[in-house]
Amino acid sequence: MSAPKLAKGPADFKLLTAGTPNGYKASILLEELVAAYPGFTYDFEGISFKSNEQKEEWFLQVNPNGRIPAAIVYPKEQGGKEHYVFESASISLWLIDHIDTAHKLSFEDEYEKSEALSWLFFMHGGLGPMQGYREETKRLYSVLEDRLAGRREDPATSEDGKTHGREREYVVGKGKGKYSFVDVNIYPWVRTHAWAGVESLAEYPNLSKWLDRVAARPAVKRGLDIPEKNTYNPAMTEEEQTKKAEAAKQWIHGK
Amino acid sequence: MSAPKLAKGPADFKLLTAGTPNGYKASILLEELVAAYPGFTYDFEGISFKSNEQKEEWFLQVNPNGRIPAAIVYPKEQGGKEHYVFESASISLWLIDHIDTAHKLSFEDEYEKSEALSWLFFMHGGLGPMQGYREETKRLYSVLEDRLAGRREDPATSEDGKTHGREREYVVGKGKGKYSFVDVNIYPWVRTHAWAGVESLAEYPNLSKWLDRVAARPAVKRGLDIPEKNTYNPAMTEEEQTKKAEAAKQWIHGK
Repeated sequence: MSAPKLAKGPADFKLLTAGTPNGYKASILLEELVAAYPGFTYDFEGISFKSNEQKEEWFLQVNPNGRIPAAIVYPKEQGGKEHYVFESASISLWLIDHIDTAHKLSFEDEYEKSEALSWLFFMHGGLGPMQGYREETKRLYSVLEDRLAGRREDPATSEDGKTHGREREYVVGKGKGKYSFVDVNIYPWVRTHAWAGVESLAEYPNLSKWLDRVAARPAVKRGLDIPEKNTYNPAMTEEEQTKKAEAAKQWIHGK
Repeated sequence: MSAPKLAKGPADFKLLTAGTPNGYKASILLEELVAAYPGFTYDFEGISFKSNEQKEEWFLQVNPNGRIPAAIVYPKEQGGKEHYVFESASISLWLIDHIDTAHKLSFEDEYEKSEALSWLFFMHGGLGPMQGYREETKRLYSVLEDRLAGRREDPATSEDGKTHGREREYVVGKGKGKYSFVDVNIYPWVRTHAWAGVESLAEYPNLSKWLDRVAARPAVKRGLDIPEKNTYNPAMTEEEQTKKAEAAKQWIHGK
């Protein structure tokens, strides 16, 4: 219905989103880019699952799959055609390619760039869709834990074949890694670990430290307040959690 | 164990794979590139799920997530470091960026390229992980059917707001579309529709035609015979199908 929602606002980039992990991937990255590139701005529209807005025809024009996040890029040239982007990973790559031209949150080196894509898709194809399944979620967390612990790096310098390298601060990049769009894509899912049935991250000390590191960034906090003030509380009682978890399954997958 | 499997063969690119939909995404694309670029070659190694080879330490060095497909890129320069690529979508993008320099299976135009990425991730995050769930699979097929039927294109030229545009031959690209790595990524999953509980594609006439169109390509047939001769038979009896389906759930997800 709300055709005006397609209309251009003050910025050239409009995010259509809701407060879910996939939505936060986009809003956090946008806030990071706003912080890193003075002059870059964006708009957003909250999409109401309650009224099934994501299945309305105007929204399906933007994303035929009827899911958030989706985005509209408005042409700079007069008479240009609007461009639609959907799927959180695709939105990330559009922003990285078009806004992050100085590679502040991405990689210039072709091998690092490729490594970033491998981890992005590990996230996109694995962690998100599987977070409804506790055991698979735990396995995926342990893959991230090993990565951040540097367990499989530099096999040449290892004595027992199982390398125990230096700890990483971020998932991709040389040395201790570099905070990038890949961390942004993983963070909103790991953050809701309690709702995925993994009450504590004590088994994953490096992942836990990484989570705090990312959570402390001001742009991450701002991103979580889009499209509305974030009310997620991981410290609920068990009863509250059980009650929320069922609703969360639907919500998390943006259905 | 089998450290020799990491050793360079006659080609600079080695695929570690098995005969699953995700494996075929990579082998089909490689066969298309061999056909399109005289001089380009690749090696492959079959990975045995039976002996859990994908969880051996040498394999985890390549893909810490322990899944096929994964790939090794051998350095052209002496003393260069091997590069590892994992996740089917990441392998696709590596090949597109480094081999398909004439954009025979990809897109030069930035908007078409972005559109391709949106559909790639629709596949990577949606269709693959969800193919165990019949109703969600059917919904995703209908998204592809609408796309191929051109139902949501050119809203400006539509009289009723629901555009009924021209049919597409391929998922991405202007006009009728262009056969690309995106079709390659979607094909192996839609091909096994019977195993996902969708016995017939009669409800999806455009998707069905697209499936035949892609299946007819010689490189696609060759890709399906990697790493071993393909024995998938969609025309099994119902009893055979039920029996296979349970095993297939595990197999399809490469566990």
